Amino acid sequence: MNSSKDKPFRSALKVNEGIEQPPVVNELAASRFRKARHNLLPAGEYLDGILSGNRTILSKAITLIESSLPQHQELAQEIIAHCLPLSGNSVRLGITGVPGVGKSTFIEAFGLYLISLGHKPAILAIDPSSSRSKGSILGDKTRMEELSANENAFIRPSPSAGSLGGVARKTRETIILCEAAGFDTIMVETVGVGQSETTVHSMVDFFLLLMLAGAGDELQGIKRGIMEMADAIFINKADGDNLQKVTIALAEVRNALHFFPPAESGWQTVAGTCSAVTRSGIPAVWKAIEDYLSLTRKNGYFHHRRLEQARFTMHQSVEQQLNDRFYHDPEIKKLLHSLEHDLSTGKLSAYMAAQKLLDAWDRKNK
Amino acid sequence: MNSSKDKPFRSALKVNEGIEQPPVVNELAASRFRKARHNLLPAGEYLDGILSGNRTILSKAITLIESSLPQHQELAQEIIAHCLPLSGNSVRLGITGVPGVGKSTFIEAFGLYLISLGHKPAILAIDPSSSRSKGSILGDKTRMEELSANENAFIRPSPSAGSLGGVARKTRETIILCEAAGFDTIMVETVGVGQSETTVHSMVDFFLLLMLAGAGDELQGIKRGIMEMADAIFINKADGDNLQKVTIALAEVRNALHFFPPAESGWQTVAGTCSAVTRSGIPAVWKAIEDYLSLTRKNGYFHHRRLEQARFTMHQSVEQQLNDRFYHDPEIKKLLHSLEHDLSTGKLSAYMAAQKLLDAWDRKNK
Repeated sequence: MNSSKDKPFRSALKVNEGIEQPPVVNELAASRFRKARHNLLPAGEYLDGILSGNRTILSKAITLIESSLPQHQELAQEIIAHCLPLSGNSVRLGITGVPGVGKSTFIEAFGLYLISLGHKPAILAIDPSSSRSKGSILGDKTRMEELSANENAFIRPSPSAGSLGGVARKTRETIILCEAAGFDTIMVETVGVGQSETTVHSMVDFFLLLMLAGAGDELQGIKRGIMEMADAIFINKADGDNLQKVTIALAEVRNALHFFPPAESGWQTVAGTCSAVTRSGIPAVWKAIEDYLSLTRKNGYFHHRRLEQARFTMHQSVEQQLNDRFYHDPEIKKLLHSLEHDLSTGKLSAYMAAQKLLDAWDRKNK
Repeated sequence: MNSSKDKPFRSALKVNEGIEQPPVVNELAASRFRKARHNLLPAGEYLDGILSGNRTILSKAITLIESSLPQHQELAQEIIAHCLPLSGNSVRLGITGVPGVGKSTFIEAFGLYLISLGHKPAILAIDPSSSRSKGSILGDKTRMEELSANENAFIRPSPSAGSLGGVARKTRETIILCEAAGFDTIMVETVGVGQSETTVHSMVDFFLLLMLAGAGDELQGIKRGIMEMADAIFINKADGDNLQKVTIALAEVRNALHFFPPAESGWQTVAGTCSAVTRSGIPAVWKAIEDYLSLTRKNGYFHHRRLEQARFTMHQSVEQQLNDRFYHDPEIKKLLHSLEHDLSTGKLSAYMAAQKLLDAWDRKNK
C-alpha cells in the first residue's frame, strides 16, 4: 500500500516494506552528493577494491547503495551485478534482543572469537527507528573498539534514515558486497521491538535471540513472537551476581520452547547462556550455528530457505513497483481525490471505490 | 504478495490480507450451491427483508456474501450497494481476549444489557484460524443461548474458511447489511492471538480487550501489542474467589497504561473489571464506549477514523487486485518459472529478477 496516501492511526497498518524516501532524505543525499561528487570512482576501481578486501573502498561502495541519487544508484547496481556471482558463500546471522541486552558487547566478543578461528565477520545493522533512537544500534562504534580496529572485521552502522523496506534493500545489497569482499560471517543486528526482526529473519540463515534474566513484564511482551523465529536463544550477562537468575531464566526458556511448533528446518532451537565479560558461552553460540549449518545443508533446508528469501524479496519488489506506478499516475491521483470524498460521505464502499480506480486504470492502459 | 507463489517458512511473511480462496473452498461452495441454487431470491426480496429487520433473510444475504460463487457474489454486491446508504449509523466494537477469558459469556451479558437499554446488537466473529480451532469462537451458539433467542439480537458465527483478508472483506460487508437491518451496535469478536486483532481494529470504532487476572507468562506475550490498540481493558471474571486477584491485576494494567503513548483520538484508555456472572462492570463498559463516542464525535476523530479505515480498505483491495492480475498473467507465470531457476543458481539478485518481470509486463502492456 502507499503510505503517503493511507497513513491512518496507530497499529491499524502493517509496516510497509517499500516506502519511498521522504523528500528530506533526498535533500540530504543531494547535499552529500554535492560534497562528494568529485570523489566518485569508476566502477572497476570499486570492484577491484572490494575483491581485494579493501574496507575503505567497500565502505564507499556501500555509501553508493545507501544514496538515493540516480547516478549513485546506477553505479551501485553495476557494482552489485559484478559482485553477485561471488556472493552467497557466507553464513548470514540475525542477532536481536531488547535494548540493554548487551548486543554490542556480545557481538564484539563473538566477532573476535570468530576471527581467532580464522573467520572474517562483517557486522551490519537494521534499525528502522534510528531517527528516533539515535546511536542505539551500532551508532556508538566505541562500544566495539577492539573489533572495529581488527582488519579482519568490517562494521557498518545502520543507514541513518529511510523506511524499513528501503533499509532492508540496502542491507541485502550490502551483504552481497561484503560477501564478495571475502567476509564469511555476516551479522545483521536489530533491536528487538518486533518490526525489523521479521525483515532481518527474511535475509539471514540463522537467527539468534539474546535475552536478559529476570526481565520484567515489559520484556516478556517482546520475546514471544521473536522467540518463535529464533534458532538459538542465549541469555546474556551470565556473570557475577547474575548467574543464579540466569540459570532460572534458562530453565524458563527451555520450558517455553517445549510449546513451540517444530521448525520447518528440522532444527531444534538451542537455549544457552553467555557472557561478553567472561566470554563464557561464546563458543557454544558458534557451535549451535555450525550444527545448524551442518543439519540444514544436509537436509536441503539451507538452500531452500535462501531461495525462498530471494523469491520473497523479488515479489515484494515487484508489488511495490506496481503500486508506485499506479498511485503516481496523475489520473489515478485525481480520481483518488474525488473517491475519497465519496468515501467520506458514505456514497461508496471501499470495495466499490477500489473497483472504480481499477476500471480507470484499465481504460487508460487499453 | 501472492501466497501461492512465495510461501516461505514460518514467520518470515506477514499475513496476506487478500489471498484467494484455496480450491477446496470453492469446491465446498460449489457443493453448497448445488444444494442451494433453487433457494436464491430476487435482490429486492433480500433488500425488503433486510430493511424490515428480518433476521432469516439477513442470514441468507450474508451467506451470499460468504459464498465465492460468481452468481452469489453478483447478487451480494447488488444488495450491498443498496444497503450502503442506510449503513454507518451503528457503533462498531471490536472485542478480543485470549481463549478462556470468557468472551462469549461477556458478550451475552453485555448484549442483553444493551437490549435492556433499547439497543439492537449484532455479533460477528473473525477467526482466521477457525479451521484449526473449530468452535472456539461463536461456534458454540449454546454459550449465548439467551442472547441468540432474543429477537433484538443477531448472532453470526465466523465464516468457516478463507484467508484473513477474505474473512475481513466478508465481515466488512456483513456489517453494512447488519446496519441496514437496524442493528445499532455491531460487535466483532476475535481471538487474542495477534493477527486478526489488527484487522478487526481496522474496521471498528472502539476496541475492547478482555483480560484475566493472574494470567501467566504465556498470556503476557499476547497482551502487549493488543493492549496498545485497546480503548478499554476490562478484567473479566471479577467474582467470587477471584476478586482479590482481579484487584491486583487492575492495578497492574493501570500502571502499564501509564507507559503507553497517547492515542491519536485524545482518548485515555479505560481500565476496569467486570463479571458476566454477577453482571458487575457491564454498565461501566457501555459508559466507557459512550464517553469515547462523545469525545471522538466532538473532536472529529470518529469520522476521521472511519474515513481512514475506508481508505485503507480501498488501497488494500486495489493492491491485491493489481497483484492478482500480474501474477495470473500466463507470460509472467512462465517468466517467473525461469527466473526462479536463475534465483536458485544465484545468477540473478531478487531485485534484478523483479526488474525483469516488470520489463516483461511493460512490453506486454504497450
